[in-house]
Amino acid sequence: METDEVLLAVDPSLRGTGIAVLECRSGKVRCLHFDVVKNAPKLTVAGCLLEIHCRIGGTIEKFTPSAMAIESVIYVQSFPTAITLGSARGAALLAAAQRGLAIHEYAPRRVKQAVVGTGAAQKSQVAFMVRTLLGLTVTPPPDAADAIAVGLTHFQSLGRRR
Amino acid sequence: METDEVLLAVDPSLRGTGIAVLECRSGKVRCLHFDVVKNAPKLTVAGCLLEIHCRIGGTIEKFTPSAMAIESVIYVQSFPTAITLGSARGAALLAAAQRGLAIHEYAPRRVKQAVVGTGAAQKSQVAFMVRTLLGLTVTPPPDAADAIAVGLTHFQSLGRRR
Repeated sequence: METDEVLLAVDPSLRGTGIAVLECRSGKVRCLHFDVVKNAPKLTVAGCLLEIHCRIGGTIEKFTPSAMAIESVIYVQSFPTAITLGSARGAALLAAAQRGLAIHEYAPRRVKQAVVGTGAAQKSQVAFMVRTLLGLTVTPPPDAADAIAVGLTHFQSLGRRR
Repeated sequence: METDEVLLAVDPSLRGTGIAVLECRSGKVRCLHFDVVKNAPKLTVAGCLLEIHCRIGGTIEKFTPSAMAIESVIYVQSFPTAITLGSARGAALLAAAQRGLAIHEYAPRRVKQAVVGTGAAQKSQVAFMVRTLLGLTVTPPPDAADAIAVGLTHFQSLGRRR
């Protein structure tokens, strides 16, 4: 239960993919890095995917995590949105699979439950709790906070103490 | 209107991605290659994406097309299906974008209209017409036929004669 692990956590979306790298050492979780891949509205879908794939790939090269945690998706507003979100997820999964990372998926409600204590939490609550739980000196931007939350859910699900 | 072009055409799906390479030379379209990336039901989503990305990449390296034609997606049975289909599309778009191919999208109805003459054609009709139009000696498997149909739509949309 106390095995050390460096984890990549990703909250994918075409225009704002949240990336985080968390480390669990002797049962204590630290945030090593967080970032958001912001893609301009004018960039093509393919251009956005290139950027997401490249930035996640670069993060893996730099921090050499052994696994990736990512939110599963159950409901989206519309079919075109689901297709677009799916393509962003595909770029993230591919970047991780190409480097041999184990992939763990967590449902959105489970992520909110793990971090805020309720499955219906607002994005701002997630960011606040993530900052509090990890003792960060700044509040991460919402997309990065969502990625960190997925990572915390992973460690919680392994029964690790924060 | 008669510019020569080698085109990659793709009909993405997680378990059966159709791939085709078409060449238009002096207004005449030929099929250089078709194939289906079949992924076993037991393979993980990430494993399927790796295979799709790798096989499309390999096809691009071999035939050096300058562009990719792909179906746009408007409607899918369910949100999880849309997310999964989107991830397969993402892997295909990424393979093309990484090699600098121009990307052209065509709506499914337009593809069927172009090849069969009606937007509500069955898959078997598409395969039959694709074989007839290109004078193929065998009927391509349905997923490959759909990819070829997208390619034919591209050339038709450029006003080229088959």
